[in-house]
Amino acid sequence: MADDTNLTLSRRGLMFVLSSPSGAGKTTISRMLLERDAHIRMSVSATTRPMRPGEVEGRDYFFVSQEQYDGKVARCEFLEYATVFGNSYGTPEAQIRDGLVAGQDFLFDIDWQGTQQLYQKMESDVVRVFLLPPSLDELRRRLTTRGTDSAEVIAARMARAQSEISHWDGYDYVLVNDDVEACYARVFQILEAERQRRARQTGLIDFVRDLMRPD
Amino acid sequence: MADDTNLTLSRRGLMFVLSSPSGAGKTTISRMLLERDAHIRMSVSATTRPMRPGEVEGRDYFFVSQEQYDGKVARCEFLEYATVFGNSYGTPEAQIRDGLVAGQDFLFDIDWQGTQQLYQKMESDVVRVFLLPPSLDELRRRLTTRGTDSAEVIAARMARAQSEISHWDGYDYVLVNDDVEACYARVFQILEAERQRRARQTGLIDFVRDLMRPD
Repeated sequence: MADDTNLTLSRRGLMFVLSSPSGAGKTTISRMLLERDAHIRMSVSATTRPMRPGEVEGRDYFFVSQEQYDGKVARCEFLEYATVFGNSYGTPEAQIRDGLVAGQDFLFDIDWQGTQQLYQKMESDVVRVFLLPPSLDELRRRLTTRGTDSAEVIAARMARAQSEISHWDGYDYVLVNDDVEACYARVFQILEAERQRRARQTGLIDFVRDLMRPD
Repeated sequence: MADDTNLTLSRRGLMFVLSSPSGAGKTTISRMLLERDAHIRMSVSATTRPMRPGEVEGRDYFFVSQEQYDGKVARCEFLEYATVFGNSYGTPEAQIRDGLVAGQDFLFDIDWQGTQQLYQKMESDVVRVFLLPPSLDELRRRLTTRGTDSAEVIAARMARAQSEISHWDGYDYVLVNDDVEACYARVFQILEAERQRRARQTGLIDFVRDLMRPD
């Protein structure tokens, strides 16, 4: 599909948000999208957490000090930011704005709060997709990764997943992930359809002008 | 794709509008959609024009007298209506509203004015797709169906097509139809993606309630 006319017209990129509770397949579907679609890439966050072996500055994260991070927050340089388990993360705005103009699509694997922050700043550029597990039993099964998990640990995971699910109505599309390939196919359909939106097909303005010239 | 989970949840239907200037493939793409997709059907209009051989009441049109038609207009029973070459046409509202609740999708092969009328009444149910010809030369070629067409006839058709094209920015999606199968694939992607919108997946409310029950 990458070679027909619409993709050769210039296009504004989009911000594709995938959220789900832990255990509903967000990470798997994200990886499939990045592997199979040449036009989307992960947004690179700034973080205060230490670099891990194998990670690359600017590819995995922009590694910054707490002082640098706080400065970026103070100067409103992040589209969304959050602190998780003592480490801080933020999405640099300039990178995204420049990319969108150049037709780059960005994937965001974030929770409902990050989604809300993105949407407030970039409304018409954001496409929000939420994945649901097929059932409560299946969610519990997926969250019980080891036979050694205590009942308390599992209950805490379930409570956290249900808390995330409770925000399902803040998304444009909600899919039930009961089969990973079928779910991927639907996510990809949504991505491709959203790329066709008139408001993103910036090249149409010149194209239509040419169709409208006096015959 | 018709058998996976999302389509078994109850869903509100949608109104899928295809518009294009004459010669941009609206009729062909409409026919392909009706043949290949089991969940969409043509909206059936009421009309004052006489029944033609082979036409069936209630399948092709609801055939009505001018007096009946005028009464329906006066009682606001049409979602959109227009008079073309002395014959009047209208889309009965009750049929559409009942169908949408039952999950029926409707296809509308109408011009920009009908699209505006539909959108004003049914905003969130309407998905508007506009097809463009690949170039002005190709449009002229497609509108020159017979070698015997006079220059005036062709010029009038071109003017009418360009007038329709000038309303391209009143649509949600605008596609360039330079290859009928590629264009169909994109139209179908849009239809499938729009079906997944949270606001149309009415069955999600019960589904999520079940996921949220105390574990």
